[in-house]
This record gives sequence, structure tokens and C-alpha cells, in this order.
Amino acid sequence: MLNEMIYLDNSASTRLDERVLDAMKPYFFDTYAVATSEFGYSMGIDAKEGLQEARGIIANSLTATPEEIVFTSGDTESSNMAIKGVCAALKKKKGQHIIVSKIEDFPVLNTAKNLQKQGWDVDFISVDSEGILDLDELKSKIRDDTILVSVQHGNQEIGTLQDIAAIAKICKEKDVLFHTDATHSYMRVPIDVSQIPVDMITMSAHTIHGPRGVGALYVRKGTPLEKWMDGGFQESNRRGGLENIPGAVGFAKAVELVTDKETEFLASMRDYTIKRVFEEIPHVTLNGNKKQRTPQNANITFHYVEGESMTLHLDMRGFAVSTGSACFSRSLEASHVILGIGGDHERAHGSIRFTFGRYNSMNDVDAVVDAIKEIVKQLREISPLYNKEA
Amino acid sequence: MLNEMIYLDNSASTRLDERVLDAMKPYFFDTYAVATSEFGYSMGIDAKEGLQEARGIIANSLTATPEEIVFTSGDTESSNMAIKGVCAALKKKKGQHIIVSKIEDFPVLNTAKNLQKQGWDVDFISVDSEGILDLDELKSKIRDDTILVSVQHGNQEIGTLQDIAAIAKICKEKDVLFHTDATHSYMRVPIDVSQIPVDMITMSAHTIHGPRGVGALYVRKGTPLEKWMDGGFQESNRRGGLENIPGAVGFAKAVELVTDKETEFLASMRDYTIKRVFEEIPHVTLNGNKKQRTPQNANITFHYVEGESMTLHLDMRGFAVSTGSACFSRSLEASHVILGIGGDHERAHGSIRFTFGRYNSMNDVDAVVDAIKEIVKQLREISPLYNKEA
Repeated sequence: MLNEMIYLDNSASTRLDERVLDAMKPYFFDTYAVATSEFGYSMGIDAKEGLQEARGIIANSLTATPEEIVFTSGDTESSNMAIKGVCAALKKKKGQHIIVSKIEDFPVLNTAKNLQKQGWDVDFISVDSEGILDLDELKSKIRDDTILVSVQHGNQEIGTLQDIAAIAKICKEKDVLFHTDATHSYMRVPIDVSQIPVDMITMSAHTIHGPRGVGALYVRKGTPLEKWMDGGFQESNRRGGLENIPGAVGFAKAVELVTDKETEFLASMRDYTIKRVFEEIPHVTLNGNKKQRTPQNANITFHYVEGESMTLHLDMRGFAVSTGSACFSRSLEASHVILGIGGDHERAHGSIRFTFGRYNSMNDVDAVVDAIKEIVKQLREISPLYNKEA
Repeated sequence: MLNEMIYLDNSASTRLDERVLDAMKPYFFDTYAVATSEFGYSMGIDAKEGLQEARGIIANSLTATPEEIVFTSGDTESSNMAIKGVCAALKKKKGQHIIVSKIEDFPVLNTAKNLQKQGWDVDFISVDSEGILDLDELKSKIRDDTILVSVQHGNQEIGTLQDIAAIAKICKEKDVLFHTDATHSYMRVPIDVSQIPVDMITMSAHTIHGPRGVGALYVRKGTPLEKWMDGGFQESNRRGGLENIPGAVGFAKAVELVTDKETEFLASMRDYTIKRVFEEIPHVTLNGNKKQRTPQNANITFHYVEGESMTLHLDMRGFAVSTGSACFSRSLEASHVILGIGGDHERAHGSIRFTFGRYNSMNDVDAVVDAIKEIVKQLREISPLYNKEA
């Protein structure tokens, strides 16, 4: 009952770009002072300028203002901060109802489930067979006491992109706050907050070859949000804790290094993979929408194939494959995403996720597809079910 | 109304040790995979081994077991997790009363104040004129519905060390959980959890030349603690979020690099600073206890001197000085620590914190004391109050 995934980039956490580390180094060894104080010494002021410059770069990538960016320790913290912060701020003022999609990644999904345990009313909106949110269902579920809708931008497993402009419009009309987890789409699929009335956006550095342990939350000016982590007055009093300035600077450098050309190349590797697999391997299903998907993601079910066997065989050939989603670990449950798009356990079981990154080439794509082709053939030859049905 | 501080090590956040960065590098560039999955591919398993090895090193430093260590994004998160986690777990079972000291650093102090706003009953225990906790007051405040005592190990400003063995014993006898914030003492003053019945310990990497954005919480086996940050099952299901493996590995390396000899040298720089200042500059007060203090800290009030002027003059001479505590920023309030030990605004105003680190030498100490001696003399010459009173 496993959802198998292969990372051409060898991990859900991408390799750090050397240029990112170079940008961080001065803040490790020279300008390492605390930047919090406004009455600071020269080094502290330099460090603060580095932090503010990084904040400006992240803000600019969304057409936001620097004051609207809060640095965090990653996307999990950003989503916890967003949802719990708004819930704490509006609980007594408006109500205790929130809405999320059924295929959210664990930071949003499990935060919603935790709130449910605490007495919150939570609706989980369905998606169609390609993972696209049912907008009519969303509209029908919004009530007077609904305080927040949280629907992801790009899916973590099947790459499906939601129409966040349409969702934001619905929320705006109904006067409900809208948060989107953009961990898997940030910098690959543009979001312009001056055009789309989204209130909060979760971002992470690790998906774009930035450092781990660093993320950010975009918070539209005026959004009611209770402080996350008590402590000092850092991040405009929205998140206590000594700033991870090298991390923020590295995140900003990672943002600067992403180019449209590179993103187009990731999409071309994705499309080439899908094309070759569909032309050369029978009994396959593409999970997710063909066009509305993140450029770096392909997710394909190879029917009549055992996931664990595939993992082992690919690993032996030097391809990094993992089971379950990146946030998943101790469970043998089938992926809630594959089940959410109407797949059964058999489909979840034989699915492979390809994640393309900066350090991949078309040669890698050919090599992994060649390997899969051989392995699938071998495994099917010894599969009783395949020989009976196919 | 400022508490002035000088960092001989130039910051409350110490300079990263190059050897720490070298230890982190393989996890940036080679073994960067997600280590969460238990059914993982080879690289993921290698990364997981790196994480577990780091966990073992932190555990060993406290005579704890690896399962008792939770990695976090720093001491602020560790203290929030500890206090809020226990409060959430025991609220309905035992009560809503907690106890902290009056001179805690902001992560503990402001978490306690936040809980107070939410309806919790919080007692703030006094300290004497050297910052030592009143154990009789502590004993008298523990009630049947008290669930937690949180008292720091070493103070962030005046360096005073609390007798955490005695506090832990009191808590153990009264069946109350005990958390200590050891951010400023960890690895400089030993804590052995096999000898001292402390339940939770906050630690941070940035104070021992490790990376920023990384900390840990020791959680004694069996301690009731609600999960912090919903998401994946990382950190034995106690903290969701992709593991910052390079950060954890860097933290562990920083721990390994601390030696008793180095700590003794920091103490000798501290003692030499105090000796020279008291012999050569009149009208000074040592803040904190002379013996029960962290080896790297000296905090001295220079009476009849304006804090802001001192800052400016020292900065011009190349010494990094900050105003307010490290977690403090936008406020001109006097330090709650100096007020807590019975100091007045004038005393808070002219206090300087010295923090000694790996990259300091006795020459640095002489240079900064020489500079302070000159500056204090100049500033007093133009001080009407000094010329009237002294």
C-alpha cells in the first residue's frame, strides 16, 4: 500500500546550490551579529541590512512589500503559523469554521485535523480525478462563521495546480481569508499578490536549491494573525527568535537564481518523461492534470507492479526512490492524494513521483526511463495478476 | 534607560566555526535527501544516519538517550514547545498554574505572559540582588494544580547560574514538571540528566559557534508533551517539518568542539576583565553572582555614564556594543533582569555585558578594558552628576 516516488533530483529536498552557500558565508563568519536591536553597533546594522535585503527579494518575487514577509524555519512552520494564527485571532470574533482541500500536504491537513480535535468545524473539499478542486463545493461550504480557506497552489505528489485566482476571488467576495501552501510551486509558477487577493502564502527554500530549515510566510497587510512563538520582537513582532540571517540570505539568493529558462527546461524534462513512458510502457496512468501541473513534477502509475520491488531495483541502479510522501514516514497507508483523486490502493501502490531539478539533464531522464522500462518488464513477467489480466 | 552590552565575541550570536561548516557540507551537496522515510533509498538512509548520529552526540552531552532529543529551529522554539506542549497536555488533567522566575529570557517570560493572558495562573518568583532564585518562595508557590516550573540555568544578561539540582529536587518531590532554559550555559556548565531530575532542557547551537536556526529540546522519556507544529511524523512525531539535517549535524559538531580547557580559558578572561575593571575604574558594580555565573559572561555597571554615549564611542573604536538584551529591540525600557535584581534605571542604564568566545584572546580583553577606561573617564569628566556626587 505504498506510493512510490523517484526523485531525479534525488530528494524532495533539493541539492543546495554552491552559489547559495557563498552568499551565506559572510553572515556566518563576518557579519554574524544580532540584527534585532535598533540601537545597534555597526556589525549589527550590517547584518540587519542583509536581512532586510533578503526580505525585499522574497517580497519582490510576489509583488509584495517587505513588511508582508515573515521568515520562518520552513513551510511546516509557515502553514502552522498562518492557520493557527488566524484561528486564534478570529475565534471569538467570527467563528470556528475553516475549509481545506482533501489533498493538502501534511502541514495544512494535520493542522486542520488538530483544530478539528480541538472542537473546530472543518470541511475537507473534494477534488476531481485530476486533483482539481471543486469550486462549487467550496462556494457552498462557506458560511457566516467561516474564517479561513486553505487550498494549496501545487500538489506535493501529483503536481496539480489549483486556480488560486478563482479561489481567492470567491473568498474575497465572501469576506473569508485565503491561505495557500505554495511550497511546491513557489518561483516555478508565478503568484502576483497585487493581482490575486490571497492573504497568506507558505514558501520554503529547500525546494528551489536553497538551505533547509528556512521558509517564509507572506501575510497581506492587515491580516489578523496572532503571534507565533513568544520571545523577542523579531519579524515585526510576529515571530520571536534570533533571526537565521544566513538562512534568509541564502533563501533570497536561491530565489534570484531561479530563471524562467530553467523552469521551462524542467517542464520539458517532465513532458519528455511522460511522452516516453506513455509511448514505450503499456498500462500506465498519469496522476494529476496534464497541463495544470507544476513544471518539475510527473507522477505515473505503473499498473501490475509492486512498489517496494521497484524501489529496490531502482536504488540498486543508483536512482533515489522513496516510499510515501516526503512528510510521511512510519505508515504503510496509501497516499491520501491518490485516494483523493479516486485512485484505489493498487494505483497508489504502483505510483512513482519524478521531481526534476537544476542538476538534472535529459540524459538523466533517458537513463531513469530506460531503467524503469526494464524493471517494469521484469516485474510484470513474474506477476500472476499481470499475466492473468493484461 | 538602556542596558548596554559589549560582545567581545562581537555578538550574542557567536561566529560560526569553520569546522562546523565543513561538517555540514556533505549534507548540503551529497547526502541531501529526506531522511524521514523508513522504507528509504540509500541516500535517504545515509542522511538519516547523519541525523541520528547528531542526535546521539547531543544526547550524550547530557547523559540522555537519543530518543529524548528533539531538534528545533532554536532556543525560542524549544522553550515555546516545552511550556506550551506541557500546558496543552496537562491543562485538563491537572490544572492551569505554572511558575517561572522573574529574570527569564523572553522566550520563557513572554510565553508565560501569553499563557497568563489566556487565563493561566502564573507566578513569577523573585531573585536576590545577585540573581539567585528564592527557593523558599518557589516551594511556597507550588500548589496541587501546578503543572510546571520553568527556571533558567544561566542568565542571558548577568550570567547568574541557578541551582537547578535543588530546583529539580523540589519539583520532583512535589510531582511538578521542571523545564530549564540552558541556552546560555549549555556545554559551558555541565548538566547530567541521570543525576538531576530535570524534565526538559532548552538548548541552542548559536551560543557555541554552531549554526543559527538550530536548537534542541531535551524531553525526559514519559514527559507529557503535546505535539508542536502539525505536519509529518518527524522527530518521533513530536515536531512536524522536514529535518534540517545539515543544521543538526553542525550543532553536533559544535558540541564536539567545546573543550573544558576552552571553557576554563573563557572563565579566566571573565575573571581578568572583572579584576582589571575593579582595580582600575572607580564607581563600578558587578551584576550577578561572582562565582555562580556562566564562564563566558561578565556584566558591569559603570556609574555616572550614559549608555548610548558608551555604545557610540566603543563602536567607533571597533568594539561591537548593543543596547538592550539580544531578544530586545524596539523598546527603551530598562532591562527586566537588572530591575529584577533590585537595580534602578540608572544602573540598568550604564551596564555593559561582556560575552567571551572562542575567537577572543587576553589581548582583546586588555584592548576593550583600556578603551572603556578611557571612555568612562572622558564621559565622567563632562557629567554634571558625576562632578556633583562623586
